[in-house]
Amino acid sequence: MTDSLRTIRVQEALLSKNRSIAERLRRRFQEAGVQAVNLLSSPGSGKTTLLERTLSSLSRNTRAAVIVGDLATDNDGRRLAGKGAPIVQIQTGGICHLDAAMVERALAGLDLPSLDLLFLENVGNLVCPSAYDLGEARRVVLLSVTEGEDKPLKYPSAFRKADLVLITKADIAAAVEFQREAALEGLRRAAPGVPILEVSARTGQGMEAWLGWLESLLRQEAEP
Amino acid sequence: MTDSLRTIRVQEALLSKNRSIAERLRRRFQEAGVQAVNLLSSPGSGKTTLLERTLSSLSRNTRAAVIVGDLATDNDGRRLAGKGAPIVQIQTGGICHLDAAMVERALAGLDLPSLDLLFLENVGNLVCPSAYDLGEARRVVLLSVTEGEDKPLKYPSAFRKADLVLITKADIAAAVEFQREAALEGLRRAAPGVPILEVSARTGQGMEAWLGWLESLLRQEAEP
Repeated sequence: MTDSLRTIRVQEALLSKNRSIAERLRRRFQEAGVQAVNLLSSPGSGKTTLLERTLSSLSRNTRAAVIVGDLATDNDGRRLAGKGAPIVQIQTGGICHLDAAMVERALAGLDLPSLDLLFLENVGNLVCPSAYDLGEARRVVLLSVTEGEDKPLKYPSAFRKADLVLITKADIAAAVEFQREAALEGLRRAAPGVPILEVSARTGQGMEAWLGWLESLLRQEAEP
Repeated sequence: MTDSLRTIRVQEALLSKNRSIAERLRRRFQEAGVQAVNLLSSPGSGKTTLLERTLSSLSRNTRAAVIVGDLATDNDGRRLAGKGAPIVQIQTGGICHLDAAMVERALAGLDLPSLDLLFLENVGNLVCPSAYDLGEARRVVLLSVTEGEDKPLKYPSAFRKADLVLITKADIAAAVEFQREAALEGLRRAAPGVPILEVSARTGQGMEAWLGWLESLLRQEAEP
């Protein structure tokens, strides 16, 4: 067997095992009445800043928690702490994505039935996390205006499975000469029909729409 | 054998094979008198824009070429074309990094002895490419001012092996409230002693220093 064939076989086995753990997670989330949202993006697209503002802005009735993955450091976990939401930091030790087993272990630190919403802040990486189902109800992919308009076409796997795309750092779009139409066109090609919101966690632009999207997700859960 | 142990074994075998191809490449580069520079960064940190400006600014005596890796599309290859330098686009088909075998195959498209400088523009990813030696003489890691100051500590593997760090998009540092001292401190901790240049391919800031760094690399080659 060639090296690359062997790699593909091992990867298939890993992904298949990941899928079965993810299905188990999905059932647990459903039974507990929790909506899990997997957040994917490049490093520095603003996942943590978005979550900081989101945790501060959610209605008091919404009980949220965050599982946050990083290669190293607990910087993001510390940034998110103190907003009333439980935070569990995963350090992947160099692994380029979260997987379902890591999330399952992290759940030991959370009282799932007490929650409505669970954010899974993935490792900053626009490639590897896309292959790993974490049992999430929805997958949200962030694209910051600083990253360049062609990223959806250059990283199709990340965007193809998105349920929502957030164009982040919208407040500096002009300063970085963001080509909005080109970006929207790329997103429409990479992720046909996927809703797109333009947000700025700094100025609050678009945050109402994002919070509305989350609330409609929670209402969906509450319905029979 | 557990799945994860099996994965580690296969990864070790792959990395070991990569190392031996990389050594072969390094010898070929040395024999041809070519300095290969591996460029690593997150998606959208400005590798292609930097190379566009670099190719236009290099002295006429310097014969450069670029091998550029992307998951999909030949957008970057097309952007770099028409500047007098041969460009070879690699589409990795979803693989999250370049490896030495891909570079070796791409060399079929280049007349190595006619070159002085070969840029290897890696897939935009701050995790996976760091493990793969491409036979390069130098590794340059880009960190854009939009990515956040703590990236060097959060992605230590990428920065640890850098020979030079370029802080890119310096012209918009103020607009994105870039915390310069925190970023420099993080870099000093993640990559002690590594030189750091602050550049903007848009305004030209720092380009002279970057071109000077490249020229000193070429002079080093020319010496016995």
